[in-house]
Amino acid sequence: MENINYDLLIENMIGKTVERPNKNTNGTLSGHAAGEPFEKNVYHYLKDKYPQNIYKQYEFLNDLYLKNPLKITAEQRYALFDSPTILFLLSRGKDATEKWDPLNIFEEKQNDTADILFHKNGYFELIDVKTRNLSKNAQAPNIISSYKLAQACSIMIDNNEFNTFSLNYIEIDWVDSQQILTCKNAHHANIFKSNPEDLYINWAAAMQIQFHVCDIRQNWEDSPKDWAYCYIRNFVYSAKHRCDEMLQKYVKPFEKYLETYSSIAASPQSPYGIK
Amino acid sequence: MENINYDLLIENMIGKTVERPNKNTNGTLSGHAAGEPFEKNVYHYLKDKYPQNIYKQYEFLNDLYLKNPLKITAEQRYALFDSPTILFLLSRGKDATEKWDPLNIFEEKQNDTADILFHKNGYFELIDVKTRNLSKNAQAPNIISSYKLAQACSIMIDNNEFNTFSLNYIEIDWVDSQQILTCKNAHHANIFKSNPEDLYINWAAAMQIQFHVCDIRQNWEDSPKDWAYCYIRNFVYSAKHRCDEMLQKYVKPFEKYLETYSSIAASPQSPYGIK
Repeated sequence: MENINYDLLIENMIGKTVERPNKNTNGTLSGHAAGEPFEKNVYHYLKDKYPQNIYKQYEFLNDLYLKNPLKITAEQRYALFDSPTILFLLSRGKDATEKWDPLNIFEEKQNDTADILFHKNGYFELIDVKTRNLSKNAQAPNIISSYKLAQACSIMIDNNEFNTFSLNYIEIDWVDSQQILTCKNAHHANIFKSNPEDLYINWAAAMQIQFHVCDIRQNWEDSPKDWAYCYIRNFVYSAKHRCDEMLQKYVKPFEKYLETYSSIAASPQSPYGIK
Repeated sequence: MENINYDLLIENMIGKTVERPNKNTNGTLSGHAAGEPFEKNVYHYLKDKYPQNIYKQYEFLNDLYLKNPLKITAEQRYALFDSPTILFLLSRGKDATEKWDPLNIFEEKQNDTADILFHKNGYFELIDVKTRNLSKNAQAPNIISSYKLAQACSIMIDNNEFNTFSLNYIEIDWVDSQQILTCKNAHHANIFKSNPEDLYINWAAAMQIQFHVCDIRQNWEDSPKDWAYCYIRNFVYSAKHRCDEMLQKYVKPFEKYLETYSSIAASPQSPYGIK
């Protein structure tokens, strides 16, 4: 199920230009800082095309709570979500949800799951925009927390709920020509069309899944339920593998010093003054 | 052994102002971007005061290789270091060291160990400047890779070399008033004067040691050799603890799904179409 025409979105983005965010200082341009104007561009294109369905994540929450002014506790507000998975992916913490009121609405938050979402008849397409400076050989960007995705998969399985959302990523490849950034190419991928075994988890980078959208194969042919199980299996294997690796690299080579330390520390003739 | 008068440095920094780096765009000010001008400030103050002894890390390497033009292989250049620990902490990779030449000298690199170094008679004071926006309740900054420090400690022990360097951190606390950032307070800490058991390792953030310089106690009274042993013990404990935590949090809760998955996958009557 796909409501957004991603091919058209990509066609529209190629050739688009934005102003270099810090053109006055000529400073270094981090991928993230440069990306913001392109993300806005994607949002405005989609909002124009699907005005009834496109939201920023926090706009969706504000809209939902504004339309239900009699629901005021966190529990009542959480109950407005039909889907436990969507509740898990989109809602804010209990405290923030309780404190929300029309004069104190939500703003953008860095660890929101999605930049943009499309909502229609209870189905959600979550969209994140990743931008890439083509002149740099940068590391693959953070896609989503592997743990958050494992939790989402377990909620999907527990509730037998496999057709309420998709996780979509848009890559914008840009070049910097003088003071203008130009989009040279763009790509779309849906994480549920990838093979969970292809997903690389960087445990030392906040356990984020990392890939370049243009590189991720879209060849998954089994059901979303199979995807959820297969992803969890892969996540568990990866966590165990990371532990083995940590013991090999960070424990084993240093154990000999622990033995020496206990022996010098225990000796009353210790030449090192250890108490 | 301390060559730099850190009290004077701190006195000098308090009240110093710098221009807001991105004042034209009024954009968000990340700690790092805002910090750069204050770091330059510290460098210039120290360079004025100790002109013969203060370097940026890459300047020291450039200087060393320029003064020894007949040493051209990586091995020959590495042999210019008297201390194995300093070699480990300051030098660049073999490939980069081999490729270095007077027309292709080193530039600043993000994962250099130190921003600034003081060198005199074979003794090194490595100095990193951390800046802090007092109006934000930010997470403690990355200090140094816990693994790099464990490796350094093992080299110190293996070579019985405990008095060649210190690792110093300067915290600059600033407030943003209109377009000007003002340093309201500053702090100094030497990691070898802290208790290794106080050092928090954030394994999910590139296994960095994290602390606010103003918070770290400076109460270590035993020898540097004891420090190295104690640090390694703490590092190993922390790595093991992180593994336990990962198994509890990322493996155990998900294992039940693996059992279900194998049973549905193995069944020829599988209703889920798993091959």
